[in-house]
Order: sequence, then structure tokens, then C-alpha cells
Amino acid sequence: MSIIKEQYEQYVAQLQKIQDLNSTLALLHWDNEVNAPSKGASLRGQQIATLSATVHEWATSSELGELLLHLNANRQALSENEAKNVELSLAIFNKEKKLPIKFVTAFSKAKTKAFQAWLNARKAKDYTLYKNELRVMVDLLKEKARLIGYKEHPYDALIDEFEKGATVAQLDILFGAVRQQLVAFAKEIKVKGQPSEKAFLNRHYDKQKQWDFGIELLTQMGYDFEAGRQDLSEHPFTTTFSSKDVRITTRIEENTPLEMIGSCIHEGGHALYEMGLPSKQYGLPLGMATSLGIHESQSRLWENQVGLSLAYWKVNFPRMQERFPEALEGITVEQFYKAINQLEPNYIRTIADEIHYHLHVLIRYEIEKGLMDGTYDVENLDLVWNKKYKDFLGLEVPDATKGILQDVHWAEGLFGYFPTYSLGSFYAAQFYSKAKEDLPNLEEEIAKGNMTPLLEWLRYHIHQHGQKYTSEELCQRITGEGLNLSYFMAYAREKYAVIYEFETKHYSVENPN
Amino acid sequence: MSIIKEQYEQYVAQLQKIQDLNSTLALLHWDNEVNAPSKGASLRGQQIATLSATVHEWATSSELGELLLHLNANRQALSENEAKNVELSLAIFNKEKKLPIKFVTAFSKAKTKAFQAWLNARKAKDYTLYKNELRVMVDLLKEKARLIGYKEHPYDALIDEFEKGATVAQLDILFGAVRQQLVAFAKEIKVKGQPSEKAFLNRHYDKQKQWDFGIELLTQMGYDFEAGRQDLSEHPFTTTFSSKDVRITTRIEENTPLEMIGSCIHEGGHALYEMGLPSKQYGLPLGMATSLGIHESQSRLWENQVGLSLAYWKVNFPRMQERFPEALEGITVEQFYKAINQLEPNYIRTIADEIHYHLHVLIRYEIEKGLMDGTYDVENLDLVWNKKYKDFLGLEVPDATKGILQDVHWAEGLFGYFPTYSLGSFYAAQFYSKAKEDLPNLEEEIAKGNMTPLLEWLRYHIHQHGQKYTSEELCQRITGEGLNLSYFMAYAREKYAVIYEFETKHYSVENPN
Repeated sequence: MSIIKEQYEQYVAQLQKIQDLNSTLALLHWDNEVNAPSKGASLRGQQIATLSATVHEWATSSELGELLLHLNANRQALSENEAKNVELSLAIFNKEKKLPIKFVTAFSKAKTKAFQAWLNARKAKDYTLYKNELRVMVDLLKEKARLIGYKEHPYDALIDEFEKGATVAQLDILFGAVRQQLVAFAKEIKVKGQPSEKAFLNRHYDKQKQWDFGIELLTQMGYDFEAGRQDLSEHPFTTTFSSKDVRITTRIEENTPLEMIGSCIHEGGHALYEMGLPSKQYGLPLGMATSLGIHESQSRLWENQVGLSLAYWKVNFPRMQERFPEALEGITVEQFYKAINQLEPNYIRTIADEIHYHLHVLIRYEIEKGLMDGTYDVENLDLVWNKKYKDFLGLEVPDATKGILQDVHWAEGLFGYFPTYSLGSFYAAQFYSKAKEDLPNLEEEIAKGNMTPLLEWLRYHIHQHGQKYTSEELCQRITGEGLNLSYFMAYAREKYAVIYEFETKHYSVENPN
Repeated sequence: MSIIKEQYEQYVAQLQKIQDLNSTLALLHWDNEVNAPSKGASLRGQQIATLSATVHEWATSSELGELLLHLNANRQALSENEAKNVELSLAIFNKEKKLPIKFVTAFSKAKTKAFQAWLNARKAKDYTLYKNELRVMVDLLKEKARLIGYKEHPYDALIDEFEKGATVAQLDILFGAVRQQLVAFAKEIKVKGQPSEKAFLNRHYDKQKQWDFGIELLTQMGYDFEAGRQDLSEHPFTTTFSSKDVRITTRIEENTPLEMIGSCIHEGGHALYEMGLPSKQYGLPLGMATSLGIHESQSRLWENQVGLSLAYWKVNFPRMQERFPEALEGITVEQFYKAINQLEPNYIRTIADEIHYHLHVLIRYEIEKGLMDGTYDVENLDLVWNKKYKDFLGLEVPDATKGILQDVHWAEGLFGYFPTYSLGSFYAAQFYSKAKEDLPNLEEEIAKGNMTPLLEWLRYHIHQHGQKYTSEELCQRITGEGLNLSYFMAYAREKYAVIYEFETKHYSVENPN
């Protein structure tokens, strides 16, 4: 082996050690959500803080830094993929290096405290119990933005962590269009549309049978239960210990089976991406998801383009009806399809429909941006929240748990994360449009319960690459253009015109460039 | 704060960081047994290896070493407990220092491989599939003994890790007496005793109802479900992430409810010890169990002295009968008590009765000792095993899973662990004898379902001290003498004379000193 190859192997070993700790941290978090007894929380927080600090120490060691600089200077002796790994690792190293260990530890501790305060505030339905910890968190996030640095807006520094290269300047344009087009579209449907009967969706659905049905749907998608498992938790999520152990969670309520179904398919979509990453690249950038936007494109594509389609329910509705003969007695697949696709504003993001969902994201985007640049303050943020729900969705928020306390993200220090939910949905529509073009029989196969062609298409075009391409590069490679909201709008108009039985001129995709 | 106190705080912080990693390692192992999907095993092994190496690195850092030496030299400025912590930490540090990181990593990897081979060998009922990995393990254990050092027998170096100060010289005497007295006792009962009807113990017992009954028994003992949880696993075990999160597992078979009950009470006993350790001493010697022998004394005392007593079943048998009315129809508590206390040789250690159990341990003790000093070799060890079962228990081992492959310990590199099972039982008999003396109403309270007096006695005399006293010191403090097998023999004779309805002269405890 040449010296440079040996040094590359050293780099791989160091990155994999860091990944070992990160995977272990993920297990600590997963266990907290799924298993941990209440009294263990505070020492568990300390354990997480110790591991986080160690990850940071290893990820910013001068030994690793020198190795990366040296390898980067000798890129010509490496393969294309090796060089890409080094280039990306160096960028991460340089960014991580900007955060002193003191900050990392304080941030980790603040998360544990904020999470606990958020839980207590939810229990008491009282935002004021959370306010102080949220303020600490926002101050730390401002400091983080300062430490990392930014060109135009402090929020840019945070968004970049989840969606490389995305900025307030770009997102303002995108969300401006979202607001204009989606609010108009929702209004149009309200005026012209005929709502469908959907009360049967809230009948009694046995919990164990729901669980079994969820497992069946996941198996059909291609989720590998020998390389993962599903559990129950308060909020559904996906977590990865390696591409051979990707776990998901769901929640089950007796009268809302669609929540369970939606979360299984959504988290299943995330998990398929993680399971499809190249396991040989464990711990290296090419073994990791390229961005949260692309991650969300995978979950959303399965959840919406597939899981809310007529083709999907052609095969799965009879199976569901077999499991729940009483609740679904006399219902046809067409009735079911229309019922699950009704549009209705609601104050809870996670159960929002495909259209209103993006107004929820928009509200959070504006608040995060405003907190970062000083437009808003934590003090009366619940009032700001409620006013936006009135303005954008026409809703009165009944209490804080259905308002500002509904999401865990801020308690976990995740600012800049929400916009990726919308980006993901728009990427999903664009990718799916291309997949249908590439696979003319796609929906027929889905209607037969055969998800393999779609999964293979996603594996080939997206999963196998890891971080080799950025979101935008990936989108260019696959669809021949960057992200374009028109695909989503065309998908929505075409779909809801049928569901709400109103005429629509055929919308072609406009190229905004 | 004085400088020395500040340095003590530094030491505490370093030890707690090490504990954070050790607790995390415990979680990785727990998750492996309880949750992990099969394909994730190999990368999980790598994650465990990375954390193990890091623990070793931290536990042997020169920074910690200097701090310990300095604190130890200035003991007079510390409190008694602080000084004890430092003294014990220094001893552990010096021992750990003898193991180079290369050895620690090799050992960790060998464990993962041996465990996998053991699983495969069990599946195929074929010892030869395990032999090579076991040989690697034995060679590593010999190297470990050499590295640590010993005075008389290489096995001493390994036993010391689980039972400080115990040696082959001492254990040979103890197990000599065990063999002589227990074999004679078992024979005596075989000749004189009247076996009881016990077929009803193998009737159908619904799994879910067994689970519920186990939870009831644990709650009655004082196991705190807000600081722990029970799960299912292949082999029951207890694991500790902190004294506020102590988890146990059990297994349930439809026709053997006593296995589930026994494991709940046994693991519950371990867990109560861990939950009773002082949480302020998290990560420090005074916050840890003093030895495996004492740990086992806690589990065995609950399992045998309490869980196999007539008093215990006076309160719990009616409850059990209520849950399983068909299986236990027409059975009296006295019949049940006799049935669960029948003595019968069996080739499986974990379901052995209170008397034969120690012959199982003796066999393992002799084999481990023989492997370490070259008397035995891994090559045909299954034959050695089978011959000893014939000689000591009069049994033909039907196949390797019921023979040499029945225990996981060797695959996990645990040599010197088995003897602590017997030590624990003998300590348990001695402690319980003293508890009954201190608490004259003890068995009446137990018969009412009130376990609090016993738990408080154990907390006061044992749990709260952590490693402040060694096993022998603890035994001296509590009972006024060192470990004395006579207490166990007196307990056994008194109990089984009633159960087997034969005359016995009253056995007083002999003082062997």
C-alpha cells in the first residue's frame, strides 16, 4: 500500500471511531424515548453530555486536522470517492473547530434542561414554564451562529447545518411563493370543492391490529426487520446505528389509524434511505445522507406520493378492510381515498394535510428567523405564534400544547430544521414526477403491492450516493434542473381536482429560470 | 475550597466521566440482548470495542494516575469516605495499567466473536463450532493472568476481579467441603426422603398472566419501576446505568412458571442492591457493589431464603392461584411449598435446586482452574464436562446445549465468575440467619407481604456501603465472623428435613475457626 493510501486508512479508522460514538449517542437518545424510566433522566443527561464532548474532542483533534489537510493536498493520489470524502470531512472539521468544547458542553446540557422544561410545560399547558430554558437555547443558538459565521443573516449559519448552502435569501423567495400559491389554492378548494364523508376514519380501530397492519405495510415497502425494528414512542422518529440497524418508532391511538399508518410509511421512507446508504462507507460522508431536505424527500415521497395515492390503496385497502371489517364496512376504496385526502386547516403540524402542512412550516421559519435577527423575543412568543396561526390558517389556537408547545425541535436546539420539511416535499414531487417518467408502469406495480421498482429507482438515483452530491446537484442530475416548486403545484392541482371534483386547466410545470 | 478538595472534585469528575462511558457500554450490551436486529451485530461489536478502548484509555491516563497518587499521599486532608474512594481507585488504576490497550481491544473483539460462535454452536448443538473461539479466549485469559500477575495460581488473578482477595487455595478448601457435605446430604435425602407430587408445576400457565404476576412480585419486593424496567431476553440478567436506572430481564415459558418467578426474584434481588447504592457516589468505588459474591448474596437471599420459603408463599400463593385457577385447582400452599422445593439432579445449572446448584458451580470451578493451569485443554473439553456430570451428579449429558454450551460466561471472557454464585449463596444463608435474629418478626411480616423490614435491613447493613468494606469485612461486621459454610448447611438441613419429612438432629452452626 502506498503511504497516501495508508494515511487514507488512518483517516477512515478515525472517522469510524467518531461514528461509533455518534451511533452510541443515538442509542442513548433512542433509549430515552423508547425505554428509559423517569428517574434515570438526569444521569442519562450527564452520560449524553460526556459522549457529546468526546465526539467533539475527537472530531476537532489536531491529529485529524493535519491528516485531513495532508490528504486534501494529495487528492490526486486518491480515487474520486476517496477525494470527495476527504474534501467533505475537511469542511466539517473546519466548521466543528469553530465551536469550543465549552460551548458544546453548555449546548448539550441546555438541551437536556430545555427538553425537561418542555415536557413539564406541556403537562401544565403553560408556555411560561418553558420560556426561560428556551431563552437560554436561543442565546446559545445566536452564539453558535456568531462562532460559525455567516455572510448575510445569522439564521443562515444554522440552516446550513441541515441543508448545505440554503440561505434566508433563497428561502424567503421560496416561502413567499409557497404562501402565495398555497393559500390561494386552499381558498380555491374551499370555495369550489365538495368535501367527502370521512367520519369512518375515526371509528374504533384495535391497537394491536393497527400495529400488525403497520408492520405489513413496512414489510411491503421493503423495510428490513433483520436490520431494524419498530417500537412505540411519544413522537415517531427514525434513528440509525449503522445501515444494518435502522430503527423507527410509531404511535397508536384507537380512533386515528391514519396517524399510525402515516407515521409508519413516513419513518419507513427515512429508514429505507438509511438502509440504502453504502455500508462500506460507514462513518464517512459518502455513507451519510446528503441533507435533511433529501432525507425528508424520501419520507414524504413514500408518505404522500405513494401512501396517499389511489394505486397504493387499491392493493392495501382490501387488506385493511379485512383487519377492520366493522370500522370499514361498506366503504369503497374510492371513498377511502377521498376521505384520507381531505384538506382542512388544523393547528397541529404533524397531522396537517399535504397542502396546509407548508403553512405550518412557514410560520416556524418566520419565527426562527425572527428570533435570530431580533424581530421576535422569547418573552411573548406564544402570542406571536397564535397570531400567525390566525393570519395564515384562520385558526384560534386553543392552548399552548396545541400551539407553541407542540414540537420538540426547539427544546433540542434544532433551528433551521423545519424548512427542510417543505424542501423535502417539493423535492419529493419533483423526483416522483421523474420516476413516473422513467418507470411507465410504476403506479400499476404499486397497485399490485410491488414497491421494488420504486425502491430500486431511489436506491440507484439517491441512496447509494451518500453525500457525494449536494441536494441541488442531486436534483440536477436526476431531473435536469434545480428545485422547482411547480412540480409540487402541478401534483397538487392534478390530485385535488379529482378528489374535490372540480375542473382545473392542465397545469404544466413552469421553469422558473 | 482547599486545593486538596478541589483536586478531589477533579478526581470525582474524571471517575464519573469513565462511569458515563461504562454505563453507555452497559446500554449497548443490554440493547444487544433485548432489542438489536441480527444484521446490526458486527458494527455493534465495533462500537463496543471503541468504547471499551476509550474507557481503558481514560482509566489508565497518566493525568488520573498522578492525581490519584497525589490524593493518596494527602489522605489525611480527606474525609474517611473520600480517602477510601481514592485508595480503591488507585488499586484499580494500578491493575488496569497492567493491561495494554492492544490487549483490551483484542479481548473485546474476541468476546464478540466467541459470543457469535457460541450462538451458532448452540443452534447446531455442536461444540466444535465454538472450540476455536474458546481457545482464543482461554489464551487471552492466560495472558491476562500473566499481565496482572499472581502469587500462586494463574486463576487467582482472574478470581480477584470478581471477588477481591479470593484465591484457589481458599476456594479449594471451601469447594472440598461443599462437595463432601452436599453430595452426602443429597444422598441422605435420596435414601430417606419422600418425594412430593409436583406435576402441576408444569401445567399450562398463560404467558401474559405470568408476566403480570412477576411484575406484582417485583413491586412487592420494593423494585422501583420508575427507576428501572423489566424486559424479555434469552437469558435473564440485571444491568445498571445508574442507581436510578437499573434494568432486569426475564424469560417466560408456558409450562415452567417457576423459572419466570425465580428469575424475577433473583434479578430483583440484584437490582435492589444496585438501587440501594448511594447515588451521590455515582462512578466512585463507594457507589459500586463490593463484589460479585455479595451481589449474588442479595439475589440468592431473595430467591431462596425468601422466595422459596413457606412464609413468602403464604401471602403469594393465594394470589398466584387467583391468576391460574385451573393449573392450581385444589392445591394447598403446603403442597405448593413442597413441590417447589424438591431436590433432583439436573444437567442445567440455571434451573438446579438449592443444593445441587453448588455441584454445577464446582464443576465449572474445576474446569476453569484446570484450563488456566494446563490440566485441561479446550480440544476435548466437552468430554471432560460430561465426565464430571456423571461423576458428581450421576447424569448423562444428552447434548452439548445441555452440557458445555449451556452458559454464556466463557464466551464473554468471564473466568472466575462462577465461584461467586456459591459464595453468594453461603453469604446469603449467613446474612439471613443474622437478619432473623435482628428482626424477630421477619417471617411474619413476609407472610403478610411486607418486605420493607428486610429491604431496610439489607440497605442499612449492605447496600449503602458500596465498596467501603470487602466481602469478608462486611461479613465480619454483620455477623461477627467470616464466611462460614455451616450456616448454609444448617439452613438446608432444617428446611429439607421438614419438606422430606425425615428426622434430623438439630444442627447448630459450627465455628470452623
